[in-house]
Amino acid sequence: MKVKPTFLLAILLLSNFIYAQDQADDKGDSLVIRSIFDEALMNGESYSHLNYLCKKIGMRITGSQAAEDAVVWSKSVVKEYGVDSVYVQSVEAEHWVRGDKELVAISDEGILPLQACALGGSVGTDGVLEADVVEVSGIEELKAYGVGELEGKIVLLNEPMDKKMINTFNAYGACVSQRYSGASEAAKRGAVAVLVRSLTTLTDVFPHTGSMGYENGVTRIPAAALATQDADVLHRYIDSLGTVKVIMNLNCYTSDRVVNTYNLIAEVKGSEHPDQIIVFGAHIDSWDKGEGAHDDGAGVVQCMEVLRLFNKMGLKPKNTIRMVLYMNEENGNRGGKTYAENAKAIDENHICAIESDRGGFSPRGFSIDGTDSQQIALANFHEILEPYGLHYFKKGYGGVDIGPLKREENRVNENLFLLGLYPDSQRYFDYHHSADDVFENVNQRELELGGASMAAMLYLVDKYWYLFSE
Amino acid sequence: MKVKPTFLLAILLLSNFIYAQDQADDKGDSLVIRSIFDEALMNGESYSHLNYLCKKIGMRITGSQAAEDAVVWSKSVVKEYGVDSVYVQSVEAEHWVRGDKELVAISDEGILPLQACALGGSVGTDGVLEADVVEVSGIEELKAYGVGELEGKIVLLNEPMDKKMINTFNAYGACVSQRYSGASEAAKRGAVAVLVRSLTTLTDVFPHTGSMGYENGVTRIPAAALATQDADVLHRYIDSLGTVKVIMNLNCYTSDRVVNTYNLIAEVKGSEHPDQIIVFGAHIDSWDKGEGAHDDGAGVVQCMEVLRLFNKMGLKPKNTIRMVLYMNEENGNRGGKTYAENAKAIDENHICAIESDRGGFSPRGFSIDGTDSQQIALANFHEILEPYGLHYFKKGYGGVDIGPLKREENRVNENLFLLGLYPDSQRYFDYHHSADDVFENVNQRELELGGASMAAMLYLVDKYWYLFSE
Repeated sequence: MKVKPTFLLAILLLSNFIYAQDQADDKGDSLVIRSIFDEALMNGESYSHLNYLCKKIGMRITGSQAAEDAVVWSKSVVKEYGVDSVYVQSVEAEHWVRGDKELVAISDEGILPLQACALGGSVGTDGVLEADVVEVSGIEELKAYGVGELEGKIVLLNEPMDKKMINTFNAYGACVSQRYSGASEAAKRGAVAVLVRSLTTLTDVFPHTGSMGYENGVTRIPAAALATQDADVLHRYIDSLGTVKVIMNLNCYTSDRVVNTYNLIAEVKGSEHPDQIIVFGAHIDSWDKGEGAHDDGAGVVQCMEVLRLFNKMGLKPKNTIRMVLYMNEENGNRGGKTYAENAKAIDENHICAIESDRGGFSPRGFSIDGTDSQQIALANFHEILEPYGLHYFKKGYGGVDIGPLKREENRVNENLFLLGLYPDSQRYFDYHHSADDVFENVNQRELELGGASMAAMLYLVDKYWYLFSE
Repeated sequence: MKVKPTFLLAILLLSNFIYAQDQADDKGDSLVIRSIFDEALMNGESYSHLNYLCKKIGMRITGSQAAEDAVVWSKSVVKEYGVDSVYVQSVEAEHWVRGDKELVAISDEGILPLQACALGGSVGTDGVLEADVVEVSGIEELKAYGVGELEGKIVLLNEPMDKKMINTFNAYGACVSQRYSGASEAAKRGAVAVLVRSLTTLTDVFPHTGSMGYENGVTRIPAAALATQDADVLHRYIDSLGTVKVIMNLNCYTSDRVVNTYNLIAEVKGSEHPDQIIVFGAHIDSWDKGEGAHDDGAGVVQCMEVLRLFNKMGLKPKNTIRMVLYMNEENGNRGGKTYAENAKAIDENHICAIESDRGGFSPRGFSIDGTDSQQIALANFHEILEPYGLHYFKKGYGGVDIGPLKREENRVNENLFLLGLYPDSQRYFDYHHSADDVFENVNQRELELGGASMAAMLYLVDKYWYLFSE
């Protein structure tokens, strides 16, 4: 047993004690937070909203009618939640179109179709492409090939997510580069297309899509995700036959037209510091697979529920609280960037930003992107939140949509800190970016607890905002 | 913000510091525990074992052929896991038989069948029974009726589980008495049968069965569970019509024959203290609905995995570690009682007992049934277990099967403490005791993390057992 960190934790907690001495209204806060959870669990509307968003509106990739419908619908819902204003913010985004269903198949002996789909942002194949496949274990093995060594080949990037990592987001982060950068790295070496193993911890039948990008000055070659089951099949074929031919037909393209779309914003003015903004949000777009239930329908309905809870319970924030449902997180992040650029342009003072974009699973806490002293300030809330299963308050990523607010070029307030809702991650990549990300795979209580956790954190950060500004 | 408990926690952690000063091999322990989780997540056998147990053997109520098959199968599996001995322990249990499918229906205008099933232990109706229904909100409202006031009635006990409770087991505990004691309380007041709202947080179509008991000297009347959806339907009928007639036909009975069945026991002798036993277990029987996947197939395969992990990694326990797969937890607890009575009779020294019977969900820690100083000793493990999502180490229930070991009449060692694996509880009662408790509703990673958590805790308790004996 190592003992030092325990000792340090004790010291840390003692220092929290000093921080917290000013405050004495625990009973009031406890009761408010208890009421937030009671209301969410007894009369919550997030689950029925998610049903509507998934089943009536459905998948909502940027530029689709459904994406626009989702903005209109969410606006109509939250304007009943006692907000001071609700409006849309224009966002210009690229328009990527999948086109007709893809064909990817082993073509050596007859045709063996593989479960595959184009990666978001990929160019099409311009008809049917056929080539031998070269398999690499991941982006590093690909980079070991020299220029021209993969001339005319299709590269299979077949790195599995590392199941040993307890937080599956870490495993995702460790191999997402094969999906994002695989095409350009392969093209530099002469390849004509890439197939990428889906990023999921399961062996399943769904291709899991996701964004990819092209390096400037490098030939743009088509890129598709293979279901993990089919990546394994292809691997075995290559293993036994040496070379295997694959045909690919992708009809996707990035349209010339710019999509004129929207973020949805709703706010309640602060009673004491209306110029200080705490923003909380999620992304309203999704991939065009499944229903975007966990990614990020869950976050959307949780944020809407936060507004409902504040209204229902008559909570009056000291600072302005603002919900943003961001467009285009999945393929361009133009919603988050536009929001941050606009905030900078009009010199808005954001003191905190909170995001829910890790699925509607049992919440376990929040990750904080802030200073050491802000992390220590956050420790003042541990005890009051612990009865709700919230125990994780470590440094970590805030979220894709709120990230741009804290970038050097956009930041107005140096003390801005980011919080990311941190649910249990074990099942997230079972569904992520696949046809299986549907309403039925979201549990009502887990979803509701996440929304209540967001509301409780917002309540505390708003009330004790000054602890984070020193 | 209240500050005192934070301060006390700091002091508590400082006292742990003192406890832990003796030990210096953190690196070794960290590596062992990391290896346990790696092996469970990469090469775990618990999920495929659960598939076999659920799909090839299936539901396994005490006295069924499947229950016997499960014992034989588990024995054949674990004997390959390097144990010193594996054997069965005789258990005598009552034999309750459900009989032909039950009929419960509203009979006022035509017949409206309700989704229902007999509660375990119930007598049958001896033909078709028909009577007016009186609804009560729960056991307390039932007790407010005087003797004879419910003459000839069927009582509907319709208390829902309290959704506000964050730990769903607390909500279960708060209203399980309507299921267990409802029949006798109703019979005392003249009732001829009871219908009990299923204990689940969902509104669903499955009757959730479970055990009930009869008070000595009170007329034994039939008892059935109603699906929550149907309990709501019946409630609305009563609300609108005033009185509603229901017919019931239950064919269940407790057989005269005693079931001669078995616990399955496998052990590895301790290298230093073979006379000191750490027992860990789960129950191999299930209800006759679904496949007993979460309850308690998950616990069974996790315990088997613990033996595999110890063997695979060459871990040699100091104390004797013993796995027990208990029979008859669901309707009599004869397995747990027999094991404890036998241990007392031969004066076996159990120092710790660990149980997994809260479903195969993401583990969050362990509840401890022990002294204050044992809880503090447990705190030595917090830091080393926290990277695996284990943070909950509070006083609480150990488990139904290990409970008898600690009862006054059975206890050999006064320092015996109990640990119950504590997974996330949000989804447990969606499936509990219903036809929906099937393999498909268990997530592989969540299951595997639970088994690894059991193995890690067993490793630490075995190595640092002396911390708990002072």
